[in-house]
Amino acid sequence: MIERLAVIGVGLIGGSLARALRANDAVGEVIGCGRSIEHLERAQALGVIDAYCQDPGKAVANADMVFIAVPLGAIAGVFARIQGQLAEQAVITDGGSVKGSVIADAVQVFGEIPSWFVPGHPIAGTERSGVEASFPELYQNRRVILTPLAETDPQAIERVRAMWERVGSEVTEMSVAHHDEVLAATSHLPHMLAFGLVDALTRLGSNDEIFRYAAGGFRDFSRIASSSPEMWRDICLANSEALTAMLTRFGSEMTELSDAIRRKDGEALLRIFGRARAARERYVDGIDEGVS
Amino acid sequence: MIERLAVIGVGLIGGSLARALRANDAVGEVIGCGRSIEHLERAQALGVIDAYCQDPGKAVANADMVFIAVPLGAIAGVFARIQGQLAEQAVITDGGSVKGSVIADAVQVFGEIPSWFVPGHPIAGTERSGVEASFPELYQNRRVILTPLAETDPQAIERVRAMWERVGSEVTEMSVAHHDEVLAATSHLPHMLAFGLVDALTRLGSNDEIFRYAAGGFRDFSRIASSSPEMWRDICLANSEALTAMLTRFGSEMTELSDAIRRKDGEALLRIFGRARAARERYVDGIDEGVS
Repeated sequence: MIERLAVIGVGLIGGSLARALRANDAVGEVIGCGRSIEHLERAQALGVIDAYCQDPGKAVANADMVFIAVPLGAIAGVFARIQGQLAEQAVITDGGSVKGSVIADAVQVFGEIPSWFVPGHPIAGTERSGVEASFPELYQNRRVILTPLAETDPQAIERVRAMWERVGSEVTEMSVAHHDEVLAATSHLPHMLAFGLVDALTRLGSNDEIFRYAAGGFRDFSRIASSSPEMWRDICLANSEALTAMLTRFGSEMTELSDAIRRKDGEALLRIFGRARAARERYVDGIDEGVS
Repeated sequence: MIERLAVIGVGLIGGSLARALRANDAVGEVIGCGRSIEHLERAQALGVIDAYCQDPGKAVANADMVFIAVPLGAIAGVFARIQGQLAEQAVITDGGSVKGSVIADAVQVFGEIPSWFVPGHPIAGTERSGVEASFPELYQNRRVILTPLAETDPQAIERVRAMWERVGSEVTEMSVAHHDEVLAATSHLPHMLAFGLVDALTRLGSNDEIFRYAAGGFRDFSRIASSSPEMWRDICLANSEALTAMLTRFGSEMTELSDAIRRKDGEALLRIFGRARAARERYVDGIDEGVS
């Protein structure tokens, strides 16, 4: 049972965790913190939080668990505001999509890797945002990755693990570098392709024809491209190296595929497409069953 | 009212047209044709067709409308079999995803562009295939593109238009080259990116980790990649030039985006992502409302 949870950033991610913990009777009091009074009042009216304030330093007072769910670019600022304000035994965790940059921010502010900070990332979300979009089931059957360091207190890790498991998630630990590579491959690169495709096609013509005939394939891509530009800028900046490496690999793949198309090599195409389908079918049950 | 419809290739596309015309009391008799007796019997048992045969030349006997819904690579063979077997006043149309190659096939077999052949392409479909997957609503609120040539009989065009409008589609006419470019951009290129992404990531590692963390973005891509390798090989071969041109444009876009990421140019990234989202939002209502 978490006595007092401070949620810094009461949006889809932070709001859903608060709702989920409440739904599971796993939290006492929830304090919300953010930049917009209007959103905080809305969160309170919705029952997502009990009270709120706009100063992270005050929000974390007497909190035994703190969840930082602000944009990547704002995390360092939050660290700076909570420095020295945390209760004894308080544990901090976050939901940032990139771990290396968050840890670097922590080191920059705290001068070291704090033992009470457990870097985390719930692999969940929708294109929608804000506390209105939050719901208690968001984390059910989802995966959460924790990237503790050697300095991280094992008990802190356990408390964060227990919190996420309580709301239905499966928790995995991995190294920071591995997390950032996996996410570059499975999330960041696909989003770059979606943005790139929509931008490239938009530049093609002066009318909406491209979108008019956008059934199936393109529609899926374009939906992804409606994600927040600011959030994705932050992710790209934070995970620049791993993402650049993935883009390079993908570029090589597309060169190979493009060459096969240009020279009309049907056999090569069958090999590439067949491999992709086989891989997808090998694992699709793993994706859709249980933890997805 | 179509007196007798011959459907060559009774799968998702052909089967759904038959079902839709029946549901709208717009067809008398439906003759199915294909390679597999088992599938044809199934189609008949499902009530999709009234009778069947395996010889396209016999199937089109006395048919006033013929719909060719076989894979792109099989169309020339069908043309060859129906040559000289068509009824007076019979009109032929098809559902091929590429129009240039289909017309080239017709010229090769018939020695000219037949006035009674109306090249067509219903922009519809799912990843599923076969007559079991067919359903009468597939073409409701979908777009169908016809690419008639100067040689095409206007009355033939009108009969094909009327047929598709009867099952709920909006029919547009455009040139062959424009169709193949638009489809290269909105369908073929996105599918190449999906296949390329899945293949590239599969080659990354020896375990299924990539797929295990494949929430959101990657899952959409991988679903597209489970499409038929043979069908997509045929499309790539048939639309090689337009698709190669699109791949080149996309490659330039990704080079620009990758460079911005590598040099951590947040402003450039915001511009690209913002442009993509704005374009998508300008047109998403156009996609989702009415004809989509």
